[in-house]
Amino acid sequence: MRGPLGAADTAGGSSADPPLGSDFPLTRLQLLTHQWRSEAPAERNTEVKSIPTVAMRSSVPLYLCLLLCACLGVACVAGVCVWNSQWHGGFAWDDSGLKFNWHPVLMVSGLVVVYGFGAVLYRVPLTWGGDKLPWKLAHAGAMLLALVLAVVGLCAVFQNHATNHIPPLYSLHSWVGICSVFLFATQWAVGVGAFLLPCSPVALRVLLKPLHVWLGASILTLSIAACVSGINEKLIFALKGTVNGTLPYSALPPEAVFANSLGALIVVFGLVVLRILSNRSWERPEPGGQDTAYRPLLQEENE
Amino acid sequence: MRGPLGAADTAGGSSADPPLGSDFPLTRLQLLTHQWRSEAPAERNTEVKSIPTVAMRSSVPLYLCLLLCACLGVACVAGVCVWNSQWHGGFAWDDSGLKFNWHPVLMVSGLVVVYGFGAVLYRVPLTWGGDKLPWKLAHAGAMLLALVLAVVGLCAVFQNHATNHIPPLYSLHSWVGICSVFLFATQWAVGVGAFLLPCSPVALRVLLKPLHVWLGASILTLSIAACVSGINEKLIFALKGTVNGTLPYSALPPEAVFANSLGALIVVFGLVVLRILSNRSWERPEPGGQDTAYRPLLQEENE
Repeated sequence: MRGPLGAADTAGGSSADPPLGSDFPLTRLQLLTHQWRSEAPAERNTEVKSIPTVAMRSSVPLYLCLLLCACLGVACVAGVCVWNSQWHGGFAWDDSGLKFNWHPVLMVSGLVVVYGFGAVLYRVPLTWGGDKLPWKLAHAGAMLLALVLAVVGLCAVFQNHATNHIPPLYSLHSWVGICSVFLFATQWAVGVGAFLLPCSPVALRVLLKPLHVWLGASILTLSIAACVSGINEKLIFALKGTVNGTLPYSALPPEAVFANSLGALIVVFGLVVLRILSNRSWERPEPGGQDTAYRPLLQEENE
Repeated sequence: MRGPLGAADTAGGSSADPPLGSDFPLTRLQLLTHQWRSEAPAERNTEVKSIPTVAMRSSVPLYLCLLLCACLGVACVAGVCVWNSQWHGGFAWDDSGLKFNWHPVLMVSGLVVVYGFGAVLYRVPLTWGGDKLPWKLAHAGAMLLALVLAVVGLCAVFQNHATNHIPPLYSLHSWVGICSVFLFATQWAVGVGAFLLPCSPVALRVLLKPLHVWLGASILTLSIAACVSGINEKLIFALKGTVNGTLPYSALPPEAVFANSLGALIVVFGLVVLRILSNRSWERPEPGGQDTAYRPLLQEENE
């Protein structure tokens, strides 16, 4: 009788192994891992060494992408800080207009940069060896930090609008932004419940993982759209020409060039993150070769 | 000796088969296809029938997603037409302000809706049987239509700006939009050259396919960001309150609610398209199980 891989079931495969012919694809490393699990114990010593070798061989472009991602992320945060310091008077948490300036800084830092770093964490090959649990906690921690920054950033704009008697949540920018934060909070709570809590059943985790990955990328897409529309909106309001004594946005004064470039940088950062996430050969090799490797918190890694 | 799947190489595998343990992942259908190709010819009649059976079994949620995608796409085009007819005087291709109204209609129709439909074409299970070439031509044709619509949409706004002495390409919205169209044109030209022309080497196609898929999703992400920022910008300019006798944007008059909802609809359409593209079990099963199945134009399908 043939197994799902077209090989005789008796040819080295253990009946305790999870079936490989599921709806989920298998990367080369997962196939190698499955091969290792199918071997007789005496053969494992040599096979287990070959997995990191393959991983390292294909990780140079990945490290270059991660380095690019880190540089772009730092440049985004620096850029949004410089924009609001240089052209909008800096930062304060009081009833002056300076409180608003925290909004772009915290949204870009939280909802884009820290979020992006947290998303690609599992793609860092250094995290592939040993227990996954610390990296799951680091992923959840980075995302919590991103969420807190975003929520404080929302507080800044809500309080600024209240002080200046401007209605909240009227623009499409604000609709997209608030949806992004709401989905992010939901994703974080469901993610912790499904992938970290001990009571979460394996079937639920297998069901949720592709949705978690897709929703994660979707939230980043929404964040990019919110950032682009937000920078655009801020420049329209700030550079009114003769109305407020500035050069108009359409004349592309230095602030407009700088903030437009910042927007472009944010877009490039987002696309690099999505590139890292979409490359299947850069995924973390799971010992089980399946999503069942998402063991809940407090469960033994080698169970 | 063991093969890359952990099975004995002699267990039904043909030495002419491409190695499965490559950097590309394998879906369940690809594994089944490989299994079929590894069988003795006498066993193929039963196995070949099982592939469409598996495909149909898993295609109900896919068809529901495709139906949702089609409905959302039609709603987006209808919505952007109604917005510009109802609140901005309709359409004309002359020196009146009505020429501008073609811009949102053509950009949403081309760069988002037709583009999205073209992107998910290979995911329609009806296209999976038989020769792939007609569907490759349909994919390239749909994308060409999308590109032409987008370029005409750009002409509308460039000519409108020229007539009204407004500098072109100053806003972040325009930067993101023009980058999106430029990348789209490049993607289309490279795609035709690599995947349709007979002189294109297989190695180039294998190298380019993941980049083609990633850049395709990235262009859609850029288009969504351009649409959101464009609708936001248009509403800021159109709803100035006492300045031009309208209710201000911040008071959320009916036009603002309608156009904001249109923007939300565009975002949801884009995310549904990205969901369909990201689900690996919905990918077109390739007979070779690899990107080498991307045969160039004029080459025989059964070569």
